[in-house]
Amino acid sequence: MEKVYEGKTKTVYALPNGNCLLKFKDDVTGENGKFDPGANTVGLSIEGIGKENLKTSIHFFEKINAAGIKTHYVSADVDDATMEVLKATPFGHGLEVICRYRAVGSFFRRYGEYIKEGAELPGGFVEMTFKNDDLGDPIVSKDALAILQVMNEEQYEKVKAMTLAITKIVADDLKEKGLDLYDIKFEYGYNGENVILIDEIASGNMRVYKDGKYVEPMDLTAMILGS
Amino acid sequence: MEKVYEGKTKTVYALPNGNCLLKFKDDVTGENGKFDPGANTVGLSIEGIGKENLKTSIHFFEKINAAGIKTHYVSADVDDATMEVLKATPFGHGLEVICRYRAVGSFFRRYGEYIKEGAELPGGFVEMTFKNDDLGDPIVSKDALAILQVMNEEQYEKVKAMTLAITKIVADDLKEKGLDLYDIKFEYGYNGENVILIDEIASGNMRVYKDGKYVEPMDLTAMILGS
Repeated sequence: MEKVYEGKTKTVYALPNGNCLLKFKDDVTGENGKFDPGANTVGLSIEGIGKENLKTSIHFFEKINAAGIKTHYVSADVDDATMEVLKATPFGHGLEVICRYRAVGSFFRRYGEYIKEGAELPGGFVEMTFKNDDLGDPIVSKDALAILQVMNEEQYEKVKAMTLAITKIVADDLKEKGLDLYDIKFEYGYNGENVILIDEIASGNMRVYKDGKYVEPMDLTAMILGS
Repeated sequence: MEKVYEGKTKTVYALPNGNCLLKFKDDVTGENGKFDPGANTVGLSIEGIGKENLKTSIHFFEKINAAGIKTHYVSADVDDATMEVLKATPFGHGLEVICRYRAVGSFFRRYGEYIKEGAELPGGFVEMTFKNDDLGDPIVSKDALAILQVMNEEQYEKVKAMTLAITKIVADDLKEKGLDLYDIKFEYGYNGENVILIDEIASGNMRVYKDGKYVEPMDLTAMILGS
């Protein structure tokens, strides 16, 4: 198998059938030895976390595929910590699509003059940012994405609608476990004409609360997997 | 006349006919005694600049009103440094609407990974920011403005269309003087059902180049007024 990309937490290989194989590592992002899913540097290694994140991703990808929403997920081999996915071209060099149900985090820091911390955002709110630590992950609007030729207007509307639908699937699943989704981030790419959900869906991608208290990613994984 | 608001560069009075009177001051924004139209503090006083900004505003407001685009401008008295305007409720507490023809300034700083400095933005690009020095004037999208209840989607599309049309009027006027508009900022409000252009349109609101060289606001005013 040809290695096509070495990421921070995953290695990507090309498969003979034209798909890709993602190998989940035990490296996690963080800083100064502390696990931080939002960080852009590898902070430490946690034994078994690659497989835990893979299992969480399988859990959600299967629900999303079953709902008829296109993702890159094909199949997985948990023992091998690998996931077979459709080949996809990501939008830009690290475009994150965030869906927010509550005004927390950077949304509240930016717009606190206009909304209370933790206020509900009815129906969900979608925004996109470019991953760029030095610039504090700048927000990029629909019109900016079009003029920068990263994503056209039709693709934007498609990604927004998919994001609202996928977030509802995740939130409904968490709700059954007594958990409240506050926000979640995704990545998308295109495979031919199709816009598809790519990357992973693990506890580090979302901010979840239980009875008004933030749930740490490691605890959240256990709750999602019922382990 | 009742004073209703004391701004940094203008004082607002209520008129008996229901309109407002803006008195242009000679105070300009800046820092450390240096004129900087983008600053949020009054930096110094420049004799006669209030009237110059008023004359520039009259010049553009009359062209915009003549094109059938709604503004708050009613009439002006240059000797008195006053402008009579329609009463309007601004969107939010300082919402700036920016139209960009070229990738310079904060747009280039944010998105330089995806575009060359000074590149043309065909057709013009509109974005909105909340004035907030501490937060670096955060960008706010159409969806964010709606969920924060600052501006609904219909108003957003109206403001965007007005901004593109007004910017073209200003750019065409500057072009006749051999000047190139790179970007410009506006403020809008609503008067009943109508969305209208408010505030002023002076050299400090725009970034203009001549033969590839930036033109300072004071020089620009002289060129616009042909004085």
